[in-house]
Amino acid sequence: MQPMKKGALMTYDLIIENGILLTADEDSHIHKDGLICIAGGEIMFAGPRDKAPERKGARQVVDACGGIIMPGLVNSHTHVPMSIFRGLADDLPLETWLNEHMFPAEASHINPETVRIGTLLSCAEMLLSGTTCFCDGYFYEDAVAQAASETGLRAVLAHGIIDFPAPGVPDPSQNVRASASYAKEWKGKTPLITPSIFCHSPYTCSAETIQNAKKEAAALGVLLQIHAAESKFEHTQSMEQHGLSPVRYLDGLGVLDENTLVVHGVWVDDKDMEILSQKNAAVSVTTHSEMKLASGVAPIPAYLRAGVRVGLGTDGPASNNNHDMFSEMDLTAKIHKALNLDPTELDAATAIALAARMSADAIGLGAVTGSLEKGKRADIIVIDVDAPNMTPMYHPESAVVYAASADNVKHVFVDGRQLVQDGRLTSMDLEKIMDEVRSLAKAIGG
Amino acid sequence: MQPMKKGALMTYDLIIENGILLTADEDSHIHKDGLICIAGGEIMFAGPRDKAPERKGARQVVDACGGIIMPGLVNSHTHVPMSIFRGLADDLPLETWLNEHMFPAEASHINPETVRIGTLLSCAEMLLSGTTCFCDGYFYEDAVAQAASETGLRAVLAHGIIDFPAPGVPDPSQNVRASASYAKEWKGKTPLITPSIFCHSPYTCSAETIQNAKKEAAALGVLLQIHAAESKFEHTQSMEQHGLSPVRYLDGLGVLDENTLVVHGVWVDDKDMEILSQKNAAVSVTTHSEMKLASGVAPIPAYLRAGVRVGLGTDGPASNNNHDMFSEMDLTAKIHKALNLDPTELDAATAIALAARMSADAIGLGAVTGSLEKGKRADIIVIDVDAPNMTPMYHPESAVVYAASADNVKHVFVDGRQLVQDGRLTSMDLEKIMDEVRSLAKAIGG
Repeated sequence: MQPMKKGALMTYDLIIENGILLTADEDSHIHKDGLICIAGGEIMFAGPRDKAPERKGARQVVDACGGIIMPGLVNSHTHVPMSIFRGLADDLPLETWLNEHMFPAEASHINPETVRIGTLLSCAEMLLSGTTCFCDGYFYEDAVAQAASETGLRAVLAHGIIDFPAPGVPDPSQNVRASASYAKEWKGKTPLITPSIFCHSPYTCSAETIQNAKKEAAALGVLLQIHAAESKFEHTQSMEQHGLSPVRYLDGLGVLDENTLVVHGVWVDDKDMEILSQKNAAVSVTTHSEMKLASGVAPIPAYLRAGVRVGLGTDGPASNNNHDMFSEMDLTAKIHKALNLDPTELDAATAIALAARMSADAIGLGAVTGSLEKGKRADIIVIDVDAPNMTPMYHPESAVVYAASADNVKHVFVDGRQLVQDGRLTSMDLEKIMDEVRSLAKAIGG
Repeated sequence: MQPMKKGALMTYDLIIENGILLTADEDSHIHKDGLICIAGGEIMFAGPRDKAPERKGARQVVDACGGIIMPGLVNSHTHVPMSIFRGLADDLPLETWLNEHMFPAEASHINPETVRIGTLLSCAEMLLSGTTCFCDGYFYEDAVAQAASETGLRAVLAHGIIDFPAPGVPDPSQNVRASASYAKEWKGKTPLITPSIFCHSPYTCSAETIQNAKKEAAALGVLLQIHAAESKFEHTQSMEQHGLSPVRYLDGLGVLDENTLVVHGVWVDDKDMEILSQKNAAVSVTTHSEMKLASGVAPIPAYLRAGVRVGLGTDGPASNNNHDMFSEMDLTAKIHKALNLDPTELDAATAIALAARMSADAIGLGAVTGSLEKGKRADIIVIDVDAPNMTPMYHPESAVVYAASADNVKHVFVDGRQLVQDGRLTSMDLEKIMDEVRSLAKAIGG
């Protein structure tokens, strides 16, 4: 972007106008006749039309047609390549699902090419359903990063560490080194990809592995992701082996800080939450997946009261089975009302905040994305309200959380670039990707 | 349909072919290369292509393009006119929501014309999301029946009875008579509309009202619908006033039999379930609404083990806030896994059965709709699987429940007539209906 001459009016790259602006900022500001001005991929103004700066115009003007303009959703935990295993095995115990289905399928079918294909499919699904940024941990993450880069999505991506032979890392003694080496390579490589380190879990990695992973993450200044406190089984095992809950165990290893993302965090007590709050660690909750795998329900309202940073995610599409963040918002808002017998728990505005601004913060991109505010990057979606499920619309936040479906997403922008226009991908050949996945699925069987 | 001459090959009205047939029959039969033949709105054959009768052809042949052919979903409980209040008031206690928002809004804005408009909007939304039959209770139900008739949907419709002045029935002493009079008028009037009687609840109707309502329903041979055992508040009140749970109270009134639909049934114990099973009464569970209003979660797996007839519904769109039965299947399958910490609870096939065949049975249309079987009416939907969230597809039932969204619905047939083609309504002017609702919403405010 050229610096603006004094007195000269600005020509923006993009203006989105004529919509209800849900900023999802700290105060959940809503502007009924909102407008956003974007230059160089950055939000220069987001607010009511009558407060917008005088302007010459824009290279691209998008009419939101009275729809809802809101931040792109941020999926704070997934395993995107696993879309190739979507629905391969369901209605099974977590351990059976992992050990008898997922791990063998991964051993047989995961390679850089299948990871690339699975990533592209997930990226297509995410974009079409309004997700502009995701946080991933898997194997052959270099292939994930390359594929994600092609799609134009924003992502925090980590190569997985596990103390077993894993796809691409047959020798577990090399697992931390492989993950760190990937992270070094992608550090600063391209603006949209932020590398991270993903240590699978306390039940699949030794204390030494976890500590080494954190050491590497800290040295690189990147996020450490780790599954923890997911299932009752894991909790019981942790108590038996360490005499500590998973969270206390991780805290004892010294790996909890503001650059650590604890994924799931279902089996926690007040003390665990206090620790997470004190250490300023974040938690990614994947409500659909945790319920489907019968892990339980993470206590989000209690986390929020304890001051813990929380975000929402979908988990991998083999355990959800989709990447629909609208459905995550809806379910997350409802489950806590039902469990607490309190319909005022977790209202619509909070559900949106969790799925956007707070998810971005949880994965270390709080300054970059997750709300529509001056200075953040232009990750924006436009929701079509000219649909029966969105009619009438008395309160836009309620409409987004309780009535909308992912298919109401009309336009999607990442970093100011339009990736979905009128419900269609602009940067990807969806039919080709689906054909490739279907060919692959024939080999995988089921 | 003309009787077939011996030896002559039949020309069908409609053949749907080239899809995976989910029959949703008692044994959840699936045919990978399925085909359905329809004549006179009736299913003459539903099975594998290679077992299909020899045939001359059909007036209409629909290529399912490898998609999923399954029964239209059956919404066993809703209040369709309330779409005009969708999202008017959320995140509030049930009593506040009802007494401070819904009842006043109804008193001010419900009349035959608004009921007509709200019904049309709901019917459009239901059709587009794959619902072919619904069971409703509201006021001015004559207007609901007229509007529903226009749309071509199948419906069980009841005029509401409540012991307060109600829209269209200012004098409560006339409430049972008004409901019965409506039911008499619509009895046998048109094949797609089945009248019913809807007594609001044990906490809004006296024992005498409930018994009189049941007497009228029995005399007419129609279904009695009644909200019961919905909230903890209601349960506590029932214990205080009658010393009985809502189910035992209704049983004591003698109103539970195979033609009674208990709506919600959240607050029940083993004895209540035993009573419902012995009396062969049905229960309609509206999982999303019950969770959103924080009523709790109805124990569907326990109901099924106790042999209680159960169906799924959405409840009114002012408390859900949509008519998406796909989302009901998904959530219903997941919530019981999470609450019981057992991922094998309520598998995908059961979720589909609940939303189709069992819902149809619960509302008294078990012989008519809810599965794709010879002799039933042709209420059929075709799911597009050429979409990222449906790719790949290893197990169609899992794909329908855990991955699909309502927007994957491509074609919808009711009674053999195509009402949705390629995701568009064939029988309704959706833009006109939405415009009417939006005008109305301006008057309602919010």
